[in-house]
Amino acid sequence: MTYPPLIQKLIDLFSKFPTVGPRTATRLVFYLLRSSKGEIEELIKSISALKQEIKICPFCFNFFEGEGELCQICADPSRDKTLLCIVEKESDLISIEKTKKYNGLYFILGGTVSTLKKEDIKKIRTEELLERIKNPEKFGISQADFKELIIATNPTTEGEATALYLERILKPLNKKITRLGRGLPVGGELEYADEETLSSALESRK
Amino acid sequence: MTYPPLIQKLIDLFSKFPTVGPRTATRLVFYLLRSSKGEIEELIKSISALKQEIKICPFCFNFFEGEGELCQICADPSRDKTLLCIVEKESDLISIEKTKKYNGLYFILGGTVSTLKKEDIKKIRTEELLERIKNPEKFGISQADFKELIIATNPTTEGEATALYLERILKPLNKKITRLGRGLPVGGELEYADEETLSSALESRK
Repeated sequence: MTYPPLIQKLIDLFSKFPTVGPRTATRLVFYLLRSSKGEIEELIKSISALKQEIKICPFCFNFFEGEGELCQICADPSRDKTLLCIVEKESDLISIEKTKKYNGLYFILGGTVSTLKKEDIKKIRTEELLERIKNPEKFGISQADFKELIIATNPTTEGEATALYLERILKPLNKKITRLGRGLPVGGELEYADEETLSSALESRK
Repeated sequence: MTYPPLIQKLIDLFSKFPTVGPRTATRLVFYLLRSSKGEIEELIKSISALKQEIKICPFCFNFFEGEGELCQICADPSRDKTLLCIVEKESDLISIEKTKKYNGLYFILGGTVSTLKKEDIKKIRTEELLERIKNPEKFGISQADFKELIIATNPTTEGEATALYLERILKPLNKKITRLGRGLPVGGELEYADEETLSSALESRK
């Protein structure tokens, strides 16, 4: 006796989610089984809408919805177009935005490199980053002239390796390259830093 | 700057799931955003099928799919219809089935009571349990004559309170009432016990 195939199938699908093991997946499925028809429909509608209505910004690679070609940040004329902040992932961008201490543009790398092997480097958007710094207007950003590139990777081993690699490939562009100040606890994750710590890290960048 | 409304909406929905907080919910949503269209469709199909095709057994309250009125266990003529094992939830039934040491029927309570307040007791299926023990044929089980009722609640505070309450309401039926043997570590959860421990607990029931 195991679970009915349909239940087992959904347990397997949920088990693929990050941080979800088979036991948690089982709990999630039983939660759904106990939910009302309306709640299930709401969930399905919400998941479907995600793929249909969420767009990726051609400049910074952030997810956004609504009219327009660019995301809300890239489309905002009041943002400082001399600053570009390079982050690992979308939630890091949100964390920095919440500090309200940064008014420049962003670029989402989409990951980190742990080794400098070619197949590893291909996983992050380094080519795309270089293209956007050199020709921002090609990607919808007019009147941009980046003077400072802020490497805001996480203070983890992979984040550090990525930062060192980025510094090397960005150096030939002859721009000011900065890193987030070491107010951040080493070994931690940017996503978990409180806004105060992240604020001071932004201010003490050098 | 926060997440786009559609993303935030799904984060909120996932946050309602058991063991999922807002941060995990965010990770799940970003995992979905990175998934292919095919993977999303598979997930949606699987969630929809759950509500449409999964039925609840009228006797034991377990989930099942397929033809027939009863679940596979209740419909199986080779099961011993003198034994009834009362468990808190579906995953406990699965854990006991995996030991292959039990061949009777089950009844799923649907929870535990921590206090003996009326509104608390209403949450578990005690009325339904009594009806099914007295008139199993009314719920699709023919030729059943329960001689032993095994109370297999978890050895937690709530599980113990529930067991004591069940013993009290089952006593007037004049059946043999047993509990799972104390091979189980006190304070643990049945769901997490290894099959060996659970097997000996079944064998040493008294």
